[in-house]
Amino acid sequence: MELGSRGAAPGGVSVSAVLPAGGSGERLGGATPKQFCAVQGRPLVSYAVRAMERISWISDIIVVVSPENIETMKTIIEKYGHKRVTVVEGGITRHRSIFNGLKVFAENEFSSRLLQKPEVVIIHDAVRPFVEEDIVSKVVMAAKEHGAAGAVRPLVSTVIASAADGCLDHSLERARYRASEMPQAFLFDIIYEAYKQCTDYDLDYGTECLHLALKYCKTNAKLVEGTADLWKVTYKRDLYAAESIIKDNLSQQVCVITSGKETLAQVGFLLPESLKSQIKVEAISIPLRKNDSCLQNIIAGQCYNFVCVNEKRCAIQETQELVDMLEKSNISLLCPVVLILVHLDISENNSFSIGMEDLTMIKKFARETKKKNILVYGLLIQYK
Amino acid sequence: MELGSRGAAPGGVSVSAVLPAGGSGERLGGATPKQFCAVQGRPLVSYAVRAMERISWISDIIVVVSPENIETMKTIIEKYGHKRVTVVEGGITRHRSIFNGLKVFAENEFSSRLLQKPEVVIIHDAVRPFVEEDIVSKVVMAAKEHGAAGAVRPLVSTVIASAADGCLDHSLERARYRASEMPQAFLFDIIYEAYKQCTDYDLDYGTECLHLALKYCKTNAKLVEGTADLWKVTYKRDLYAAESIIKDNLSQQVCVITSGKETLAQVGFLLPESLKSQIKVEAISIPLRKNDSCLQNIIAGQCYNFVCVNEKRCAIQETQELVDMLEKSNISLLCPVVLILVHLDISENNSFSIGMEDLTMIKKFARETKKKNILVYGLLIQYK
Repeated sequence: MELGSRGAAPGGVSVSAVLPAGGSGERLGGATPKQFCAVQGRPLVSYAVRAMERISWISDIIVVVSPENIETMKTIIEKYGHKRVTVVEGGITRHRSIFNGLKVFAENEFSSRLLQKPEVVIIHDAVRPFVEEDIVSKVVMAAKEHGAAGAVRPLVSTVIASAADGCLDHSLERARYRASEMPQAFLFDIIYEAYKQCTDYDLDYGTECLHLALKYCKTNAKLVEGTADLWKVTYKRDLYAAESIIKDNLSQQVCVITSGKETLAQVGFLLPESLKSQIKVEAISIPLRKNDSCLQNIIAGQCYNFVCVNEKRCAIQETQELVDMLEKSNISLLCPVVLILVHLDISENNSFSIGMEDLTMIKKFARETKKKNILVYGLLIQYK
Repeated sequence: MELGSRGAAPGGVSVSAVLPAGGSGERLGGATPKQFCAVQGRPLVSYAVRAMERISWISDIIVVVSPENIETMKTIIEKYGHKRVTVVEGGITRHRSIFNGLKVFAENEFSSRLLQKPEVVIIHDAVRPFVEEDIVSKVVMAAKEHGAAGAVRPLVSTVIASAADGCLDHSLERARYRASEMPQAFLFDIIYEAYKQCTDYDLDYGTECLHLALKYCKTNAKLVEGTADLWKVTYKRDLYAAESIIKDNLSQQVCVITSGKETLAQVGFLLPESLKSQIKVEAISIPLRKNDSCLQNIIAGQCYNFVCVNEKRCAIQETQELVDMLEKSNISLLCPVVLILVHLDISENNSFSIGMEDLTMIKKFARETKKKNILVYGLLIQYK
């Protein structure tokens, strides 16, 4: 499906998401709130928005930021081409910000245009950049069934209770407890009702949405075991870790594109086979067409490396289509995209000099695409 | 004080440390247990050992490893020149390994030579590379007074209890609880008694030493608020973070060394002043002497960048002393040490050609030191 169109949500429910991004990032040290810290040149919040945006069945993404960061957030949305995002002014605490985000679907307080109220609302964090569709889908399904659901992880450290004198009172048995992580999801009416009923004390000192649903709507949230990548960027070391993971991911995926002809298809089959032990390979065996939905999805999934196996005659033209798609996707704004053109010359009467002409043409083409941060390399194989 | 000599422990107690390093690192993924994973080319456990070793008042450091890793650990100790370390064979669980480590001070089971029993024993983790003397000292003092003590940190996520059906039972009020971290410290007799008395169930399924001291010796541990750098390497992202922090530290400290002469001292004062807004600067204003204890400490603290401001006549000779000290410290085994020689020629009748001769000499000297991974750069300033 094309990025931006709506796919079917799990269970056929309508789903939107609220991302509180109003925190001050005290624990990180430094003046910039962590959600606006650059990781590989891009603000952390942009990764979290993208993670939501890649899930086609999420209708609206509400990002809640403090008043002084509204312009910053709008600039980020513009720069990275985020779609389906509404920016809302946050409150002074996390709970107040989430409440503001929910109001966009129910009250006219923050926006002239009331957004379509979803059946299920996801609450995620601006500082959790690596959430995958699989866990979001599980949490949404569980919320539909139970009214509320949240991702959890095993505890990393033993949790202990301290007495008034600063000494150990007791330690908790680690296996019985879980760390509450994000994403969480709720039937919209339940969580909105909980926020409407809860006290100022809850809004000012609480942090846990699952707790509000339990306390005010008697809804026991379903707990869904999440993967290790759900963690939250809290300290400076987490920014370091996020950066390394992003760098790793960029170089860990390649997309091999071949057109349907027999000889080409054979190469297009053998190349991914030999690569796949070392790197994540997506292989597409179709002629490149503008707006091919399968390729659109791969690009949206942040693939930065492409090998195009072509017959030489139609090479540049097909490559131009790919370059257009990459440019439109904005992914090359951040990191260079590498495009290796493998031109198989399978005609009988080929000559070396004609091959050289082709390579000269690629060179010229590559000079142009380099301005768009797309690095094209050519390889001509004469094949009899 | 010289590295390796004993300084006074806080409160004048005798102190040793046990580092359990027998874990399998399941949560990390991959075959190598996390404590043996290389971070900047050096196994994680070596950083934790070094952190203990740098604290001069810790007498013995017991590293407990699983039987199959004993040789690996001995090789690490040899390669990185660790001192005061005894390697002990671990048990099948964390508690059994710690117990084995403690026995070295009390029973002849694991070593023919019984080590001197300390008054206070520190228990730290092989996978917590960044512990500072300050927190170790606080924990030891608190253990002396209360019998047991441990570093704690605020919880990063809300902790929740799940019911049998996998739904939320209740969430804990975050402010009342703490994450139990390391280091911990105990009066030796208390923790050893607790281990002797505890059940097989404790040894096999428990993980928390503070809990054993409370349960078997009625000792309520003092909880000491630790700094953010106490965290434990658990997941692959933590290895990434550790690597970035170590790289950062390497480039964030410079030591400026000047001899006592007036003109030199002036430069030696102005240079650190202008650098200190951007980088951590240690300035020493003494003639370089072999085994200077102040300089020894700076080297032991992993300073990799030096600026030596000298009068040109005695330059090479003094630099050789520093190179000898660096070589002996083994720090250049891992990362290159950068040494910038600033030679001030303050004589009246200097000539450019004499300066060139000096620089040629430095060049030759630098070629030799480069083999030791010490990179020498020379700068000649004629100063009238």
